[in-house]
Amino acid sequence: MKKGLFITFEGNDGSGKTTISMLAYESLKAAGYPVIYTREPGGIDIAEQIRHIILDPANTAMDGRCEALLYAASRRQHLVEKVLPALEKKQIVLCDRFLDSSLAYQGVARGIGVDEVYGINEFAIEGCMPDATIYLDVSLEVGLARVASRGNLDRMDQESMDFHQAVAKGYAIVREKFAKRMHIVNADQEVEKVLADTLKVLEEIVQPYV
Amino acid sequence: MKKGLFITFEGNDGSGKTTISMLAYESLKAAGYPVIYTREPGGIDIAEQIRHIILDPANTAMDGRCEALLYAASRRQHLVEKVLPALEKKQIVLCDRFLDSSLAYQGVARGIGVDEVYGINEFAIEGCMPDATIYLDVSLEVGLARVASRGNLDRMDQESMDFHQAVAKGYAIVREKFAKRMHIVNADQEVEKVLADTLKVLEEIVQPYV
Repeated sequence: MKKGLFITFEGNDGSGKTTISMLAYESLKAAGYPVIYTREPGGIDIAEQIRHIILDPANTAMDGRCEALLYAASRRQHLVEKVLPALEKKQIVLCDRFLDSSLAYQGVARGIGVDEVYGINEFAIEGCMPDATIYLDVSLEVGLARVASRGNLDRMDQESMDFHQAVAKGYAIVREKFAKRMHIVNADQEVEKVLADTLKVLEEIVQPYV
Repeated sequence: MKKGLFITFEGNDGSGKTTISMLAYESLKAAGYPVIYTREPGGIDIAEQIRHIILDPANTAMDGRCEALLYAASRRQHLVEKVLPALEKKQIVLCDRFLDSSLAYQGVARGIGVDEVYGINEFAIEGCMPDATIYLDVSLEVGLARVASRGNLDRMDQESMDFHQAVAKGYAIVREKFAKRMHIVNADQEVEKVLADTLKVLEEIVQPYV
């Protein structure tokens, strides 16, 4: 069924995922690749509505399993309405966060368990796993300093230092579990250097495809 | 962990679940039982927000698996905030619809599969299955005539005759799968008769408990 190339960007908060993935998109596009940039909820109306519930700072009573199910629901709708049609058209899809985020955040940091959260996500994605994942590896100190400088924090950003530490542990498990599709980039560097390293990795992924 | 008694009401649209379960609640309460009546989303703020997305007639693009995940998310939050605390207090919880609805509607009528939808609901309820289920058995003709007389139909009510027929098939599978906890009541009868039959069944379920 899948005909394009599905590449996801992952990493802890403040790793520069959004900045780097958007710049990488611009670069691939300028080079003539048939590429789109997206992130959940990706402008998909139903997925936006779900994301609003997840991130509303007023929803302090939200249970971890409810949160995990909502992320999976939003992921499903975004996948069906945006990612799969693009892959059908043989496009390269760059996606800011995907399944791995749920495994690290809800599976490990919320303590639900990686396999359990993987199960509901298998239901959501029906085998449409990323072909490759750029993992932006940021130290906790650098990442949290970047987040703090943003202002306007949502419900996830407001989590404690312990939580973000647990997310890092979660990503370590995820990187091992899916070692084959993982490409690690040192994200403690200046943006220009992170981007250059990312583009080098992306070239290797995309080359055999064109 | 569970100390009270968890009783659910199921049946196709127009079977009289809401009317009968509320009247049954009044009757048990008048007889002095420690009973509560609830239905998803049960006044739980986060679950209400989720239900709003599910039932909004504008959300015609909603994918079946997204819908199933949203129901499971709403179920989880309602269970954690309302059902489990009541069971902890040794109350009898009468719940209008639960897991079986998802198996019949999303599992069978939406064609996703009973086992797959059961999987994400196992994630949501963590073993908190109903102790007993009153199944209000209504024929398609009687049920749909009742629904039509309501006006103000939501996204699920607006589904086709074929859909409701598939739901009936789904409930037949669910009744077989969970035969042990199922108590069938003929819901084609007048309300008074359905209520009398329901109360007779409820008495048998509740008696050994008090």
